[in-house]
Amino acid sequence: MSGWQTHATRTAYENAWIRVREDDVTRPDGSTGVYGVTEVRHPAVFIVPVTDNSEVLLVRLFRYTIGRDSLEVPAGGSDGQDLLVAAQRELREETGRTAQTWTRLGRVFSLNGVADAPAEVFLARGLADVGGGSLEEEGISEVLAVAWDDVLRMVRTGEIHDSETISCLMLAGLELGRIG
Amino acid sequence: MSGWQTHATRTAYENAWIRVREDDVTRPDGSTGVYGVTEVRHPAVFIVPVTDNSEVLLVRLFRYTIGRDSLEVPAGGSDGQDLLVAAQRELREETGRTAQTWTRLGRVFSLNGVADAPAEVFLARGLADVGGGSLEEEGISEVLAVAWDDVLRMVRTGEIHDSETISCLMLAGLELGRIG
Repeated sequence: MSGWQTHATRTAYENAWIRVREDDVTRPDGSTGVYGVTEVRHPAVFIVPVTDNSEVLLVRLFRYTIGRDSLEVPAGGSDGQDLLVAAQRELREETGRTAQTWTRLGRVFSLNGVADAPAEVFLARGLADVGGGSLEEEGISEVLAVAWDDVLRMVRTGEIHDSETISCLMLAGLELGRIG
Repeated sequence: MSGWQTHATRTAYENAWIRVREDDVTRPDGSTGVYGVTEVRHPAVFIVPVTDNSEVLLVRLFRYTIGRDSLEVPAGGSDGQDLLVAAQRELREETGRTAQTWTRLGRVFSLNGVADAPAEVFLARGLADVGGGSLEEEGISEVLAVAWDDVLRMVRTGEIHDSETISCLMLAGLELGRIG
C-alpha cells in the first residue's frame, strides 16, 4: 500500500513527445494537493553497442534543451514499437550498425520525482557496419568507438554528462564483468 | 555553433517544481518548429553517503510518478540554496546524518531530449548519526546501509532502478577506486 489516493486526473499540457498530467491527490499524511507528472509518450530505448575490440560506440550531438554538446550511447523513443525492434532501429539510424547479439540489461526510470520516464536498456554485440544511418537527421555530428577505460575517464571528467548514458554504462559494465 | 535558432519563448505550463517552456525554433536543417523543454526550477542535488565500513546509505520511498517503491541515494531540489548547503540539508533530512568530508563528483543531466534537469552529485564521508531527520515527511520508509557488492547486485537485478541513483553510484565508484 502506497498510502496515496488519486481522486481525479487531467492533461495540463501535451506535445508530440510529452504530456503533463495533473492529479488531485491525498498524500500518505492525509493532506491534499495536486501532483504534476511529466509522462513521456512511449518508453525510451538505450543501447550500449560494444565492438569486438571491447570499444563502446558513442554518438556526439548538440542537446538543445541544455544548450551544449553531449556524448551518449544511442537512444531514442520507442514510438510504440516492440522495444527490441525499436532498439535495433535506433542503433541503425544513429550509428549505421546492426548487432548479432542483443542482451536486455533492464529498465530504469529517470527523474522519478516529477516524471514517469521509463527506459529499456540493451547491450548490443557482434556489430556490423552496414551504413544506412541518418546521422544528420538525428543531429549526430560524430560516432566514436571508445575503449572502456577511456569511457570511464570521460565519465569521471564530466565529458560524458548524460545521466542515462552513465547508468547504461554501469549496467553494461556489470554484464560484461568490467565492474564488480 | 549549434545551428539552432530560437525566435520566441513562452511558458506553456508551470507548477511549483517544473516549468514547460515552448520555444519557436529553426533547426540546423533549416526547418522550423516548436521545442518543448521541461525545466526543473532549481538544480537537484544527489548525495552518495558512504560509511566508514564502505557501505552506501540508500533510502526506500514510494514514487507516486511511477507507482512503485524505489531504492535511491538521498537527493532533492536545491531550492535556490548553495548546492553544497542543499546537499548537506538533504542528507540530514533523509537519513539523519551529517558528513565530515564532502567531495563534488560532477554535474549530470537527466532526460536531455525533453528536459533541462541538471543534478550536482556529491560523495559524503565521515558520517555521524545526529538524528533530526524528517523521514516521514520525505516519504521515506527505510534507510539502509548496503555493502558495495550488494549495491552492485541490486543494480544488476533491477532492485535499484532509479537512473540518477545508478549514475551517481558510477561516479562514486570511480572516485572511490571501486570501478576502473
